[in-house]
Amino acid sequence: MRVLGIDCGTERTGYGVIDSDGVRHLLVAAGTIRTSPREAMAMRLRRIAEGLREVIGAHAPERAAVEEVFHAANSQSALKLAQVRGVALLVAAEAGLAVSEHSALEVKKSVVGHGHAAKEQVQFMMKSLLGEATPVNLPDACDALAVAVCEATRARFESLGLKTLSVRS
Amino acid sequence: MRVLGIDCGTERTGYGVIDSDGVRHLLVAAGTIRTSPREAMAMRLRRIAEGLREVIGAHAPERAAVEEVFHAANSQSALKLAQVRGVALLVAAEAGLAVSEHSALEVKKSVVGHGHAAKEQVQFMMKSLLGEATPVNLPDACDALAVAVCEATRARFESLGLKTLSVRS
Repeated sequence: MRVLGIDCGTERTGYGVIDSDGVRHLLVAAGTIRTSPREAMAMRLRRIAEGLREVIGAHAPERAAVEEVFHAANSQSALKLAQVRGVALLVAAEAGLAVSEHSALEVKKSVVGHGHAAKEQVQFMMKSLLGEATPVNLPDACDALAVAVCEATRARFESLGLKTLSVRS
Repeated sequence: MRVLGIDCGTERTGYGVIDSDGVRHLLVAAGTIRTSPREAMAMRLRRIAEGLREVIGAHAPERAAVEEVFHAANSQSALKLAQVRGVALLVAAEAGLAVSEHSALEVKKSVVGHGHAAKEQVQFMMKSLLGEATPVNLPDACDALAVAVCEATRARFESLGLKTLSVRS
């Protein structure tokens, strides 16, 4: 299956596309959609939507996954992030993709094996899962790929009837 | 000018369209876009986007205004609300509308005259501003109309060069 992972952000929204059977994962594309803080939020959201539609148009994923917004220490940032997330969910749904949401804990658990991994551990594991071309120098794209791997793994578990996979660690 | 006000909500998103010169306001349309809590968030956002696009298509407003999301006591609700808000901002921007954001304080101040008015006072004033047809029985639509009135008033102030209108009370 082809999976799009999205790591939402107002300045940088990462995206990552993989082909996966839920066990082996192949990197298809990854990158970052950037917006300028000098632009109004509505314009930034528009740019993010356009970017995501381009990615979906170019790579035709069947499923999309977005990281859940957690309640950040800075709630103003969390609210802005949630706006981007609303746009990402909308664009994926309007493109006819199956859309899932995963917590940061689930993503780390599926990539590293436990939910409290450091960012560097996630990047290291992403490189070993997807190969040398993994853009570890683009943290948002790398995070998006991790969300895609999480989704692919979860989809395989579900297809095997293992719906109760515990992701709390 | 024709102004669309949007009062975002995951279950009920209110909309209100007025014609206004910034002093006198005429009710054009108002209503509520409803979504079911049984549907996934991505589907609910899609329904809200469709509804708003229909309203814009039918009434062709030039400007849109959305109420700013405040940091609610229940931050999980605030995050969901922010997702809807992101979608509303996107749809308005993609339709080519000028998009503004107003705090609840600004909206109340522009309608009632001070920022700490009760909901009933806002509804009473909306009826006296827009006439008997004002849907005070649809609180979300009524709130959306208040946002539209705030935007029309502010746009007039700006056109007069009075950009420093204080809205803190």
